[in-house]
Amino acid sequence: MKFLAKILIFPKEGVLDTQGKAVGRSLKRIGFEEIKEVRIGKYIQLWLEAASEEAALVKAGSMCSELLVNDLIEDQRIEVERCGL
Amino acid sequence: MKFLAKILIFPKEGVLDTQGKAVGRSLKRIGFEEIKEVRIGKYIQLWLEAASEEAALVKAGSMCSELLVNDLIEDQRIEVERCGL
Repeated sequence: MKFLAKILIFPKEGVLDTQGKAVGRSLKRIGFEEIKEVRIGKYIQLWLEAASEEAALVKAGSMCSELLVNDLIEDQRIEVERCGL
Repeated sequence: MKFLAKILIFPKEGVLDTQGKAVGRSLKRIGFEEIKEVRIGKYIQLWLEAASEEAALVKAGSMCSELLVNDLIEDQRIEVERCGL
């Protein structure tokens, strides 16, 4: 079966996010004064074959810990859905 | 009131995503043969002041079209939630 794993990766609380700071400043500069904070992470869509939704979730979790996520500074959230393709 | 806008920005279907291709190849190389496709986008968390949830959504939409998203090659999805802080 084919699944789509949607993986959100974002800086841990307390970790300095320089890209977010820069984007926040740019938004203020073009008039969005209501901005309080911006933090920038990654959104990875990952299509994979797996025997079940649980197996797909476990697999995606392994990919995160082995390659996609830096545990020291990033948090992750994974959602998996069955995918018709 | 303070809101958190969660913005997903990802490559449109049909647009070549070289970063996704590279990550897909790397995942296969370290043993994840079940990978079919990988696409990489951005996940932006944005805290802002607004009068209502709708106002926050409209504001976040403007920020996307004015700075954060390249309409030609990227799609976006925005969720807004009330935020206690």
